[in-house]
Order: sequence, then structure tokens, then C-alpha cells
Amino acid sequence: MATDFIRKCCGRVFGCLSFNRTANETSRVPLLRSRPGHHGGHNEVSNKDYESLDYDRCWNKPYLDYREKYEKQHSDRKLEILQWVMTFAIGFLTGMVALYIDLIVKLLSDWKFGTVDKSILQCSKDGCLVISLLYLLLFNVAFVTVAACLTIYEPVAGGSGIPEIKCYLNGIKIPRIARLQTLVAKSVGVLFSVAGGLFVGKEGPMIHSGAIIGSGLPQLQSITLKKINSKYSYFRTDRDKRDFVSGGAAAGVAAAFGAPIGGVLFSLEEGSSFWNQKLTWRTFFCSMAATFSLNFFLSGIDSNSWGYFYLPGLIDFGTFECQSEATTGCHLWSAVDLFIFVIMGFIGGCLGAIFNTLNKSLSLHRMINVNPKHKIFRLLEAILVAMVTTTIAFVSAMTLGQCRKIPLKPSIINSTRSSVELTVRDYFCDDGYYNDMATLFFNPQEVAIKQLFHQAGTFSMPSLAIFFILFFFLACWTYGVSVPSGLFVPSLLCGAAYGRFVALFLEQVFGYKTVYSGTYALVGAAAFLGGVVRMTISLTVILIESTNEISYGLPIMLVLMVAKWSGDLFNEGLYDIHINLKSVPLLEWDPPTEAARMKANAIMDSRLKVVFPQTRVASLIRLLKTTAHNVFPVVTAARDDCSAVTLVGPSQEADLQEQDDVECFVNQNNSNQGGDGNPIELLQRNLPMKFEGMILRSQLVTLLKKHAWYRENVQEPPRDTVSYEEFIMDYPRYPDIYDLDIPTLDGEALVDVGAYLNPCPYTVYPEATVSQVFHLFRGMGLRHLPVVCHKGELKGIITRHNLTHEFLEEKIHEQNQDD
Amino acid sequence: MATDFIRKCCGRVFGCLSFNRTANETSRVPLLRSRPGHHGGHNEVSNKDYESLDYDRCWNKPYLDYREKYEKQHSDRKLEILQWVMTFAIGFLTGMVALYIDLIVKLLSDWKFGTVDKSILQCSKDGCLVISLLYLLLFNVAFVTVAACLTIYEPVAGGSGIPEIKCYLNGIKIPRIARLQTLVAKSVGVLFSVAGGLFVGKEGPMIHSGAIIGSGLPQLQSITLKKINSKYSYFRTDRDKRDFVSGGAAAGVAAAFGAPIGGVLFSLEEGSSFWNQKLTWRTFFCSMAATFSLNFFLSGIDSNSWGYFYLPGLIDFGTFECQSEATTGCHLWSAVDLFIFVIMGFIGGCLGAIFNTLNKSLSLHRMINVNPKHKIFRLLEAILVAMVTTTIAFVSAMTLGQCRKIPLKPSIINSTRSSVELTVRDYFCDDGYYNDMATLFFNPQEVAIKQLFHQAGTFSMPSLAIFFILFFFLACWTYGVSVPSGLFVPSLLCGAAYGRFVALFLEQVFGYKTVYSGTYALVGAAAFLGGVVRMTISLTVILIESTNEISYGLPIMLVLMVAKWSGDLFNEGLYDIHINLKSVPLLEWDPPTEAARMKANAIMDSRLKVVFPQTRVASLIRLLKTTAHNVFPVVTAARDDCSAVTLVGPSQEADLQEQDDVECFVNQNNSNQGGDGNPIELLQRNLPMKFEGMILRSQLVTLLKKHAWYRENVQEPPRDTVSYEEFIMDYPRYPDIYDLDIPTLDGEALVDVGAYLNPCPYTVYPEATVSQVFHLFRGMGLRHLPVVCHKGELKGIITRHNLTHEFLEEKIHEQNQDD
Repeated sequence: MATDFIRKCCGRVFGCLSFNRTANETSRVPLLRSRPGHHGGHNEVSNKDYESLDYDRCWNKPYLDYREKYEKQHSDRKLEILQWVMTFAIGFLTGMVALYIDLIVKLLSDWKFGTVDKSILQCSKDGCLVISLLYLLLFNVAFVTVAACLTIYEPVAGGSGIPEIKCYLNGIKIPRIARLQTLVAKSVGVLFSVAGGLFVGKEGPMIHSGAIIGSGLPQLQSITLKKINSKYSYFRTDRDKRDFVSGGAAAGVAAAFGAPIGGVLFSLEEGSSFWNQKLTWRTFFCSMAATFSLNFFLSGIDSNSWGYFYLPGLIDFGTFECQSEATTGCHLWSAVDLFIFVIMGFIGGCLGAIFNTLNKSLSLHRMINVNPKHKIFRLLEAILVAMVTTTIAFVSAMTLGQCRKIPLKPSIINSTRSSVELTVRDYFCDDGYYNDMATLFFNPQEVAIKQLFHQAGTFSMPSLAIFFILFFFLACWTYGVSVPSGLFVPSLLCGAAYGRFVALFLEQVFGYKTVYSGTYALVGAAAFLGGVVRMTISLTVILIESTNEISYGLPIMLVLMVAKWSGDLFNEGLYDIHINLKSVPLLEWDPPTEAARMKANAIMDSRLKVVFPQTRVASLIRLLKTTAHNVFPVVTAARDDCSAVTLVGPSQEADLQEQDDVECFVNQNNSNQGGDGNPIELLQRNLPMKFEGMILRSQLVTLLKKHAWYRENVQEPPRDTVSYEEFIMDYPRYPDIYDLDIPTLDGEALVDVGAYLNPCPYTVYPEATVSQVFHLFRGMGLRHLPVVCHKGELKGIITRHNLTHEFLEEKIHEQNQDD
Repeated sequence: MATDFIRKCCGRVFGCLSFNRTANETSRVPLLRSRPGHHGGHNEVSNKDYESLDYDRCWNKPYLDYREKYEKQHSDRKLEILQWVMTFAIGFLTGMVALYIDLIVKLLSDWKFGTVDKSILQCSKDGCLVISLLYLLLFNVAFVTVAACLTIYEPVAGGSGIPEIKCYLNGIKIPRIARLQTLVAKSVGVLFSVAGGLFVGKEGPMIHSGAIIGSGLPQLQSITLKKINSKYSYFRTDRDKRDFVSGGAAAGVAAAFGAPIGGVLFSLEEGSSFWNQKLTWRTFFCSMAATFSLNFFLSGIDSNSWGYFYLPGLIDFGTFECQSEATTGCHLWSAVDLFIFVIMGFIGGCLGAIFNTLNKSLSLHRMINVNPKHKIFRLLEAILVAMVTTTIAFVSAMTLGQCRKIPLKPSIINSTRSSVELTVRDYFCDDGYYNDMATLFFNPQEVAIKQLFHQAGTFSMPSLAIFFILFFFLACWTYGVSVPSGLFVPSLLCGAAYGRFVALFLEQVFGYKTVYSGTYALVGAAAFLGGVVRMTISLTVILIESTNEISYGLPIMLVLMVAKWSGDLFNEGLYDIHINLKSVPLLEWDPPTEAARMKANAIMDSRLKVVFPQTRVASLIRLLKTTAHNVFPVVTAARDDCSAVTLVGPSQEADLQEQDDVECFVNQNNSNQGGDGNPIELLQRNLPMKFEGMILRSQLVTLLKKHAWYRENVQEPPRDTVSYEEFIMDYPRYPDIYDLDIPTLDGEALVDVGAYLNPCPYTVYPEATVSQVFHLFRGMGLRHLPVVCHKGELKGIITRHNLTHEFLEEKIHEQNQDD
């Protein structure tokens, strides 16, 4: 009967742990590897691989001791200075990575076009254009192969990286996202994918690179290169890392677009729920460091005038200036144009939605049909895309492009700040003429955008329309191919063609002479980009900063707003689509409106796995081996007389190797009162549990690794034997419980977690509305939120997975059906 | 003995309420009026008058019912559209107020200078300059008298208003801050204080005006004009109001500086702890609406070309362009200049600190010696300041100014966007010459700033130095005089003179020819303004946007950073100084570092005043009359068997009029079990209280006003008789308990607050560190935070006052002494 009680008790204490041992043994590795960070068992398929960051500090005794010791040793001032130095270093390095990407891409492109240009010039006369095409194909396929191989070697390096950064700033660990080898694969890969003539941008990868630098540099250690491992471990917590990543991501945006404020707002928009003002300022500093270190070197290299800063960033939309200055001043747009912009925004949003829908279907298809197969298929797809892109661009330029006269005095605006020459391409045309389609296809995308923004009357309407359609579908196909591939610049180019088309259309069909037709191209670019990515304030600011013209604020904002609204009628932004496809538990800005009617107890996970302040080593090992939870509530039994009871298990006579369930014994808390480890009372099945705190898996593993246990009757319970430094020593990769070498004999010893648990985490009541829970969870950057009733009893746990829109909507649906 | 028990029990329940009745009666009004929002009794002197906003929603049943009803009636979409329409209206109106201020100030100044100019021209020949001075004095004194009278009538309208907005966004109600009459007094007063030649700006008052519009417009009611009271009460909560105020303040910044992004960042910097992303976007929209509606009308009025937008804002620093374009491009500054900028920033910070120290002493002196006296003294001081300012400016221009030759082709840059003519003043000089000192003193400050930014070589070093010194002390004296007075533009002007002086100094003493000397003036302006106000990111962005030149980002940021750092070595920013002088319980960005070592129970207020789920009307009235708390925890006695007990009081036999203490009786919660109002058990003094929720004073008053009580034995307890609409009907001014007409007979009836309390507020454990508490409190925008122990018992309450740096540092000091 005693055994029965024991079984009952432990069945309760360890929740749904009673699956049989064999299943457990066989599925050991996947169990441990595939479900980390996930307390409940609900979304087992969708949530694997994604953990929350430990953003919230664990205010346990070792940490407080560490802080006190630290405060005595160093002044806070020193640490703050170190933080600022690190921040500068992150900004500087991000700027340098952006610089190197830009320079090498230019070198590779120049090499390619140098060869191909010559061949085309030759073959236009000799009629051997197929050979020119083959040359071009050879270059592009070779380049893309390099990019694809790198991505296949390190799959996280594929795509733009912005979805991953968005997730990280949202508080989710994405495996391998911040490794040194990812940085290498991404930053080298993007050179070749851009130079390979794919319709991809280099801005997303730059932002990702910045984030990796932000994550890695302050650690002063590397997992890829194990030799790099400094003893300075000040910033080795998820909290510090995430704060530096915000800076790095902002620096990436700042370097890519010359938009330091936009960078800050990007980080803020994606990660702002748990944020503080000091971080804003540090992030801004990081952005500035990136912009101006890039600017310094770019200006120096470009014009050999070192020490001056006149190239604002890698993307420079040129100066928007009126050609004819009226007596009343300069007008880039007028109030009438605003109405047209709104319509353009609406259409841009719809086009973006179509783009997203197509890309989503394609990505789903890839996930199901391409990715599970051998890696070679991914390589072949990348090569196929490169070949098709190259051929279509070549053939369409040859057959569909219009030859237009090169104006004697080209209407190139006085661009004192432009380093990129605005060049037209004269492929397949007579002398003195240029091919408008080739000008769009065979220029770097940034140059093509600038042409569309500033060269009035250079392009014909049919060419623009054909270019838009071809580019639209090819770019849609390309995003998701396994190469590093940004989305910003292709979308801008595509949208600029659309905007320029609208301007021509208005002029030729309605006779509406626009004030400044470049504005239409800019607005079109914003509309399409907004329709695809659906970012709001950060995108507005990035575009304003890139144009360096504050008076475009209103049109850009209006267009992005309308585009987001019209696009949202159909689907989500492309980044969100890709995040959802990967089933990352991203938390939105706000919970669903209906969440106000739901209570915490409706969404919490009540199948708890708990530990007791004193637990036997063997129980802990079993618990850690059979669950994948990252945190365990620490409880004591709440007895009638409200005095705490302590549970220890298993007893000496219990055989660790043979038993299915862990046996649990209750001790009087005060072990001096004759308890001495003998079972006094058995914990009954439904006895309520008094919540004492939370302990992390990593802490338990560290305690076991450090052999921080004691034997009742033999030793006194040790206090504070494990310091904070020892807890974070293995950060970010804590040892696996299977890798620990624990003598079987010690299984009966006791571990006292009392000093190491987080005694006062934020908690909520079971009757709190989900809105409250959501805001607390998101606002404090929590990983797990215990639900504790008015009596102080633990009722359940809420993690990120219980708060995703997907999960909440499911629950709301269930609730509505019940009503 | 029973009476003893009753007394004991109630002494405990109502905490420190046992002061005797007479004292209580006599101090009745001050007690109620002077201590609202203040739960504890600690900082009784310093905190009077300042309450927290009720930003956190009360998720009680009436609110949930209201939401459900609401969701059925209207779709959320409609409310959202209404929100956006309101946001636009706020932006538009703020723009219009800024426009009107700007235009009227111009009119008044033109009138004044038109008359005075003529007189000076005449008198320079005739030698009757004293008469010109008298003319000028007459104008200035008359104008300033109007401004001072308005401010004396509505004292909140004095000063810049930014400290008050800062407090409001921080979550503090400042009485009268957001009234219609404050708006009128401020916006009319600032016209006259600026036109009256005082060294004040109009930007602060514009920001304040925007905030008032944001606060008032969505209410669709007015306290000043009682007739305006629409039935649309969607936004009548502190939460909505505060969110609209963020928008209005941002719109004010946007209109004043043409800096929409700076406006958003201003609101974000001051109020960002409880913020959400949707609010950022709405605030941005509001800013944009203000900027461009102002821009539209300004451009239209200025050049009669309606429909174009080319005047970016009221402050326009002109276009910074290089005079001589080198072959390598345009250089506004070089890397070498950065080092000088850092030094300038350091000095600017020190100058700002001196300014602040002087102004602080002066303000303290005013608070002690001027303000308590008759209002006439404040008026006289304002007139004195006006007279001294006018006389000094006149005399120094006449005697100390240098006459310099007007260049034949003035080096005025090609300012296509400038509506303000860059004019030099030729007072006291021969034909063809101008007076450099008069040019600085007798132009509108914006024009003087522009001169300093763009007119190289116009001013002599002695003139600049004298101007700086005079302006510095006069501006310091002026800020705090009882007129509406901004600080931004005077600081910019003062700093620009300093910067221009440095440029001249470097050139003449070291022979260092600066790349573009206007940059030095800009950097000087930033350094001094930064040294005075110590704002960081928002100020940087405002200045970048005002110059419309992204490449100034780095120098401006660097200088502001250094200036803030060096200034912080000595004292706080001027706004913070004035906030502290008023003893407003502002919460900083972060708690003090040492707060990590303190626990919640060390700072909480444990002298609790609680109510029970069922309470007698008479007890409630007594409670409300004898305390000024804005919230009361609702508790039940936590008994040994953990079942809830209910307290009702006073009993029938207790005489409400005569008793000192309220008598308390405990009922079995389940009133059907024969309890029926008869006392079963007396609550013992030290019995722990189980925390059930929180109820606001305003809710209790509304319940009493609505007669929501019942008589035991006669009626069933009523449920949900008071709806959410009825609770917010009287917002924002709830009736005073003394104004309620409650029949004495009903004193014995019971009020059931169970359905109206907030059942699940956020709580913390007594052992939680103050850091955790601080971040929760600030991050969620709380007003009161119950401290509940692991057993579910209420231990204390933490309010804003327990978390101010002042209070925490005092506690840390106490703790350190104890150690």
C-alpha cells in the first residue's frame, strides 16, 4: 500500500511522466533534443527547436552575491564604459563587413560585366550573341554555385536573415543563428549571389551580419573556433546578448541604408516590448558608429580624401531636386499628388500580397518536396534559377528592349554625392542609342533604382511593364532558394519600375504632368516594398533617411500605411509568412481582442513537472532525462496547518535502476525536529502545492555537474557552494545530462536547490485575463510565467507557446464552441 | 471584552486610522485634498497634489461585460478608425495652434520693430535715442504684462510646459495641466512673452499646447466650458488619454521643429516604459499630420502657392551647403573637427551645468520669497525682467556693438526654402554699415540663429563673447519668471554664439581654417542646449531633422553625448531640476544600482487600509472620509482551515456618529449557513489577510452614489447593478465623498464590492528585489502594486512614491547604516 501511495504521489508530482521506460529510452535523444524550451506538451510538432531567451534575470542568492562582489571589485562605471566600447566595436565591425561586401560585389560585378560587355559588343556585329549569353551564364552559374554551396553547408545563412533577427529580438533563440560560421557563410555567400545576377539584395544579409557581430563580439568566445575563449565573461547572459544584438541589427540597417535612426527604430519595432531607454541610446550610438565608420572608409577609398564623410551609406537614392525651380520654390510633390499616392499605395499593397501568396506556396512546396531530398537538389534549384534569370534578362533585353537615343546632355542630376555612375547600357543598339531594358537588367540594382528615380523620360512604358512583370516573378521565385538573399533592394527596384510606369501613364493617358516624376518612382518603390514586408515606422524612417529629404515624410508614410492596410486584407508580410512556415512561436504586438475574455487558467499548462527544495540526485537525473523542460517550479506541499513540508526522493531502499516512478517522501521541513530523512508522511495525490520559486534546467545540470549534494545524517546541507560564475561558465551551451558522470552511489544524496532557485519570479493569478498575462510576459521578456492562485498554490505554467496567436485563437475557438 | 476585541481588530484593519476624531475633523479638507494618490504616509509633504494615472486597466466584471457588449455593438474596426481620426485631428489642430502662434508673434514683432526702427533711424541723427529706448520699453513692458497676467491667472501656463508633459508621460497627473483654459493662457501668453522681447522660446509652449489638445479633444467634453459634453465617451480613461497626449506632445515637437521623427522619439523617450508598438505608429501619424498641415498652410500663406509643401517647419536652420565645392565633394566637417567638437561638447555641458545651477538657486529663491507673496510681485518681477532685458540689449548694442561693412553681395546662402529674410540691423551705424550686436539682439531669435549658422564673418569675436555672456545670464533669469517661456530656442541661440566664437577663435588664434564654420555654430548650439536639457536621442533627431542633413548625425550625437556626460557630473537637466523642485514623484529610467540588494518588503507601505468584500455603508463612508488613498486592497481573513471569512461592520448597535473606531464582525462567507449577519467570530489582531483584489476610491464613491447596497435579511445581495458606463460617467472628476447625500439609515446596509474589484492585479512577493518591482511598476504603468507573500497573504502596497530615487536612496542609506 505504501508503494501505491508512492506511485500516486509521484505520478502527480512528475505529471505525465508515467510513460513507460522503454519508449522513453528509445526516444531519448529526440526527446531531449527536439523539445527544449517547451514546458507543456501541446504544440509538440510546431515548436520544436525554438526556445525563449532567458531575458529575465534570476535573482537568486549566487547572483546577488556576485553583484555585491562585483560592485566592490569594479565600479559600475567601468562596466558601463566596457559596454560602450563594445557597442562601438560592434558598430565599427558591422560597418566594415558592409564595406567589404559592397567592395567585393563591385569587383566581381565589374569583372563579369567587363568580360560580357566586350563579348556583346563584339558579337552584336558578328552575330554570335549566343556565345555572349553563354559567357554570362558561365559567370552567373559559377557565382551562384559558390553561394548555394555555402548555404547548403550552413542552412541558416540562407534567405535574408531578417525573419531570424526579428525572432531573436522577439525573444526566441534560433539555433546556429549567431555563429561565426554563419557569419562567414552569409557574408561570403551574399557576395556571390548578388554578383551572380540573381534578383536578390545584400541588405538583409548585412543586417544579419550585424546581429551576429553584436551577439558574438561581447562574448569574447566562439563556439566555431573553440580557441577563442576569453576569461572576460561579463556579458555572457541571454539578456546582455540580446541587448547587443539589438545594437548589431540596428548597425546593420544603418550601414546598409545610411539610416542610423531607421536602424534604431527597426530594432525598436521588432524588439520593443522588453526594452529600456538606455538601450535606445546605446543602439543609436551603435548605428551611428556603423554609418560613419563605413562612410569614412567609403569616402576615403572612393575619392582618396580621407577624413571626410560625404557618402552617406551603401544605398544612396541620390538627391531629389527640382529640375526647374519655380519662383515659388521647389516642389517635389503637391497636395493633388497625395491622392494618387494613396491609390498607388493600395495597388502596391495588393501587388505585395500577390507576391507573398506566390512565395508562400512556393516555399511550402520547397519545404515538402525539395528540402527533405538530397542537398544536391537545392544546389540544382539555385543553379536553375540563375540560368533562367540570366537567360530571361538577356533575351528580353535583346528582343523586347527599346533602343532610345542617348541624350546629348544627359539629364543626370547634379549628384555631387553619388559615387555610382549612372550608366545606360547600349547593348544590341546602334551607336548613340541605348537599350532601356538592358539598362534596367544589366546594372547593379542600386544603379537601376537610381536611374528610375532620377532619369525622367529614359524608359518606355512597355519596357517598364515587361521589366516589372519579369522581375516580379523571378524575384518571387528567387526568395527562398538556398542562397543568402535580401529582399529590400529587389522590391524597391520592382516598385520603382511600377511607380515610374504610373508617372508615364498619367502623363501619356491623362496628360497629367507630374511635378517631379522621380517622386512617383520613389512612392512606387515604397508602395511595393511596403506591400511585401509590411513594416511601418522603421521602413518609413529608413526611406526618409535614404532619400535624405524630410519633406518626403508624408507621402512615404501615407503610402506605407495604405499599402500595409491593403496588403493585410489578404495575407501577412513576407517575413511573417516565413516565420510562420517555420512555426516559430513569435509573439505579436498585442494579443487577439477576444483574449480579454479568456483567463490565464484556460491557457496555462497544468501538467506540471516540479521539484522540491530538497531532492535526491537520482530523482533529479531521472527528471532531467525524461523531460525536456527548461524550467521546473519548486514547490512544497501546502498542508492544512500551512507549514511547509519537504519532499525527498527516492528513499534508500528504492532501486534507481529498476523503478518506473520516482518515490517521494515527505519530511518535516525542520530536519532538526527528529525528521532526519525518515519518511513521516506521504504526499497525497491532490494535496495542493505551495509555490516556492523556479529553477532552470541549466542550473540543475550545473548543480549535478558540480556535485553539489550532501548525504543526510552524514553531512550538513551545504550552502552556496556553487557560485554565479560557475553557473554561467558553460554559457551558452550547458552540458547534457547524459554527458555527466555521476557515481551511482550518490543517487541517494540530496540536492538542496533552495539557494539557487529564483525565489520571486513574476506570477499571475489563474483568473487574470490573457491580455494582462500577455502584456506582462511580453513586456518583461519572460520565458515562463507561473500561475499561482490567491492561496499561493501553483496551478500551472504559461510559456511563449501558450501565448502565440495560433494557440490563443485555437483556445478561443474551443471556448466559443463550449458556450 | 468584546468591544476591546472589536477595537483591536479595527485598529489593525484600518491601520493607522486611530488618530482621534477631532484632529481628523478639523483637518478634514486638507487631508482629503492634499494627499490624494498617496497610499503610504511617508512623503507627506513632498508628494501632495501628485497622483499616478490609472493606466492599468481594471479587469473587473463590469468592464468585461462592457467590452463584450461593445464588441457586439460596434466592430473593433470602427473604434480603431475613430482613434485614427482623432489622432489626425489632434495633429491638425496642433499644427494650427503652432501656425497661429507663429503668425501672431510675427505680426506683433513687426509692429513693434516697425515703430522702433523708425524712431531709431530718426533719433540716431537727432540724438534722442532715449526716446527710442522708451518706445521699446513701452512695447516690451506692455506685452510682457499681458503674458504675466495670463500666467498669474493660470499658473500652470507658466514656464515651458515640457517638465509637466514629461511628468504626465511618466504617468503622473498634474492638476490643471490639461485644461482648455491652460491652453488659452499658454498659447496667448507665449505670443506676448516672445513678442515682448524676453529671451524665451515658443517651442515648449507649443509642445504643451499639443499635449493639451491631445488630452482634451478625444474627451469631447471640457471642464472649463461645461456645455461641451458629448455622450461619446469612448476615450474617457486615463489610459486612452495618456496615449493621446503622447501623440499631441509629439505633434507639438513636430510642428515646432518640423521634426516628426524627433517628435515620436520625444514621446518615446519620456514615456516609453509603458508603451506599445501601435502607439508608436499612431504617434508618428499624429506628428506627420501636424508637420504637414502646418507646412501646407505656411507654404500657402507665405507664397500664395497653395497645395505645395516646401516650408518644413517653424524652425528652419536653413540649408547647410558648402560655399566652395571641392572636386572631392562637399565637406561640412572632417574627422579632425570631431575632436574639437568633443571638447566643445564638454565645455557646453559645463556651461549648461552652470546655467542650471544658477537657475535652480533662482527658482528656489522664487519659491521661498516671491511665490508666497501677493500675485503682484510676480507681475512686477516679469516687468522688471522685461525692462532690464530691453535696456541691456539696447545699451550694449549701442555702445558695444561693432559697425561692420555690409558686403555688397552678402554671403547669404541660396536659401530657396527660407521664408525668414536674413536681415542685418543697421542701428547706430553709418550707411552701408551694420551693427553686429544689434543684429543678434534685435532680430527674432530664429533669425539670429540662422545668421550665426550661415553668415560667415559677420560677427566680431568681442561682440559674440559679450552677447553670449549677456544672453546667458538674462535667459537664466527669465526662465522661471511667471510667463510662458520656452527654453529651446534661447539655448540654441546662446550656444550658436558660443560655437561661432570658437570657430573664429580657432581661425584667428590657431589659424585653423574650419571646413565650414556654420557647422561650428550648429555644434555649439547643440552642445549648450544639450548641457542645459540633457535630452539624448530625441534631441539628436530633432536637430538632425531641423538641419535636414543626415550627415550631421555623428557630430550632433557625439556633442550631445559628451555634453550630457559632462553636465551630469555637476547636476541634472533643467527640466528635471524643476520637476524635483516641485517634488513630483517621477520615475527614472532605471532604479539605483543598489536597489538590487533591497527587497520589496523593505520599501513597501505596510500600514494598510483595507476593505472586505462585504462592508457596511457607514464603514465605507468613514474610511473614505478619513483617508485619502486612491485604492484599497480587498481582503478576507485567512483562517487556519483556509476558508474565507467575511467582515462586515459596523453592527446595528454601533453608533456611527459617536464611535472612534469602526467595529468589525466576521461572518462565515456562505451566508446561508445560518450566519445571517450575526457575529460569529471576531477577527483577531494578527490574523493574516488573504488578498482578494483592489478597489479604487472612485469605484467606492460611485457605488455609494448609486446606492448600490442591500440590507441583510431583507434583500438578496444585488449583482452587477452598476455598469462600467456608470463608473466612468464622472471621469475625470469623481464626486467627493462629502458631496454624497446618503441617508443615515442606510449606514447599516452592506455594499458588496466583490463584483467591482480588480480581482487579479499584478502582484509581487515580499522578497522580490526592488529592481524587479521597479521594472514591473514602470513597465506596466501601474499605480499601486500589492505585495503578497507566498501564502497569498497581503503584506503591503507599493506605489510610485516608494519607487522614486529619492525614497529608494533614503532606504538604501538606512539599510547601509543598519548593516
